[in-house]
Amino acid sequence: MSARYTIAVDAMGGDFGPRVTLSAAQRFLAHHPQVHLILCGALSSLQAQLTSCPESLLSRLQLIDAPDVIAMHAKPSHAVRHGQNSSMYHALQQVQLGNAQACVSAGNTGALMALGRTLLHTLPGIDRPAILSAIPTLTGHSYLLDLGANVDSSPEQLLQFALMGAATARSLDKWPEPRIALLNIGREEVKGNEQVRCAARLFKQQAGLNYIGFIEGDDVFTGQADVIVCDGFTGNIALKSNEGLARLIAGKLRRSFQRNLYRRFLGWLARPVLQELQRQIDPGQRNGASFVGLRGIVIKSHGGAGKRHFECALRQALVEIENNLPARIAEQMTQSTSEEAAKTALRLSSGA
Amino acid sequence: MSARYTIAVDAMGGDFGPRVTLSAAQRFLAHHPQVHLILCGALSSLQAQLTSCPESLLSRLQLIDAPDVIAMHAKPSHAVRHGQNSSMYHALQQVQLGNAQACVSAGNTGALMALGRTLLHTLPGIDRPAILSAIPTLTGHSYLLDLGANVDSSPEQLLQFALMGAATARSLDKWPEPRIALLNIGREEVKGNEQVRCAARLFKQQAGLNYIGFIEGDDVFTGQADVIVCDGFTGNIALKSNEGLARLIAGKLRRSFQRNLYRRFLGWLARPVLQELQRQIDPGQRNGASFVGLRGIVIKSHGGAGKRHFECALRQALVEIENNLPARIAEQMTQSTSEEAAKTALRLSSGA
Repeated sequence: MSARYTIAVDAMGGDFGPRVTLSAAQRFLAHHPQVHLILCGALSSLQAQLTSCPESLLSRLQLIDAPDVIAMHAKPSHAVRHGQNSSMYHALQQVQLGNAQACVSAGNTGALMALGRTLLHTLPGIDRPAILSAIPTLTGHSYLLDLGANVDSSPEQLLQFALMGAATARSLDKWPEPRIALLNIGREEVKGNEQVRCAARLFKQQAGLNYIGFIEGDDVFTGQADVIVCDGFTGNIALKSNEGLARLIAGKLRRSFQRNLYRRFLGWLARPVLQELQRQIDPGQRNGASFVGLRGIVIKSHGGAGKRHFECALRQALVEIENNLPARIAEQMTQSTSEEAAKTALRLSSGA
Repeated sequence: MSARYTIAVDAMGGDFGPRVTLSAAQRFLAHHPQVHLILCGALSSLQAQLTSCPESLLSRLQLIDAPDVIAMHAKPSHAVRHGQNSSMYHALQQVQLGNAQACVSAGNTGALMALGRTLLHTLPGIDRPAILSAIPTLTGHSYLLDLGANVDSSPEQLLQFALMGAATARSLDKWPEPRIALLNIGREEVKGNEQVRCAARLFKQQAGLNYIGFIEGDDVFTGQADVIVCDGFTGNIALKSNEGLARLIAGKLRRSFQRNLYRRFLGWLARPVLQELQRQIDPGQRNGASFVGLRGIVIKSHGGAGKRHFECALRQALVEIENNLPARIAEQMTQSTSEEAAKTALRLSSGA
């Protein structure tokens, strides 16, 4: 008998609310018979979307009435003070209470992070959670973090991000010694600002961390590193500008294939190739960024995600549950601390 | 009679040296009869590359013997101390001496900036030069700066970048009121770090600056802003990661069109479309980043540029000469200062 997993869904979050989240939820349940979902949202809206839901799926659905929606541009502090009746709050609370092992939301990122920290707290050894996502590379994928949970990060916090990234890659991909790199504007040790150079020194000293050095922006997609660490300001701008560029290219390609009748025919013939490309590079295909460092699994879907993409975020939650990612990160943090303590003890006993 | 323009070329710079720079130089001369070039480099290498150069072009070529090459990874400070015999130094010196109106190099970026500042100095009102480049958008192009001349920038320096970007857009594109945006991790005023929020306040107060607010990474390519300002760390990483993504997409597309015989045939049919796309998004097509804020025109070509791309950098130099960009930037800085002074006087006289 396979284990039973429960995911709490902020059904009201995102640009399309229940129309997308509930369609995705039903498709997801149909594909994953071991999963139960707790849908949090305005009961009437949820029920309206579930009228045609088959009985077999309904039995694995639980509804929680949470009438409020946190606006996409609400301040995080406002969400913490006034969000107690919101769908997002209730979904996170289900994880806090142990009723669910993960929460998925397409709502306001800042609010989700603030409420996540308030309700779930950070793991021991973690100052601040980070947002982590898989990005496509020539050979498969890598992980990039932080993608915007923090606007400023100290070198010590960047080291925590590296350890969390390493634990994620080991846990989800079974990569035994993930290669960790720091994102910088040059490869040489002298390059970059004080923050990143100081972080590099910490990374090098950290026992058990397979640190391979600085990499530049153009190497993010070559697969040279398994985990790429940067501060949230840089990571957010890099990721979003990449999404913008991918859209620009898709738009230009589409326009080019529509120029005339012959081109349209060509575009029709080439459709499988273009769809394959779309699947490989579409950021939505890897929809579902992880808030790592919390005592629970929180997955953030793109606000504009469609049902297929929101389903990806649910799948990401399931993978993290199956691998018990927060526990793996906690182990990594404990181990690093004790390795550091052992190293210090060794230094002291050898009189160095 | 059209004016005579002279461009000094660091013929040894870049991954391929004279093989690329001199082929590009000859093609460029053939297309631009009003241009003379001063080629700086090891005389023997230059002469070897020019054996088949037509007499008609040779008359518009001058060679300067500069046997040393600044290594691609040399420290900028080392270049300043020991670079006096380098091709890069001599090319910049030609601008300093007034023999050329612009210098083009594919060499070490940090060294070019350091030598550029030492030999040419910054314009009045400019603390530090910035690297500016055009980037493709849905509707045409925008300008992005700083792309890595500085690792840290104060809000005041970001404002100088904005003014230089505005002058560039007005001068080169004849856009009367270029829309200026600050790159940030959110659009709302409260978003981002202290540096960017403080810069936003300065931008708003600056008379004559058409500041439209924050934009996020995914809007870089939508053409919402004509000039996008960011610090050099963020800009460099965003730009390079975009180049990496463009290469990833091109690679995946190529691979996909080579899967089998039918796909190859399809790829052959679709070649014009793919070449068109390549032309539109290839960073090399816009090769030639401008070092703005110096008392002279300095254009940095990609180190790995081929001859067609190095020719783009030469063209960029010519466009900036024709529009006398440094003078336009100097005017903008003077005007902004006097407008600020007038505003202050008005505030004082009204007792505010």
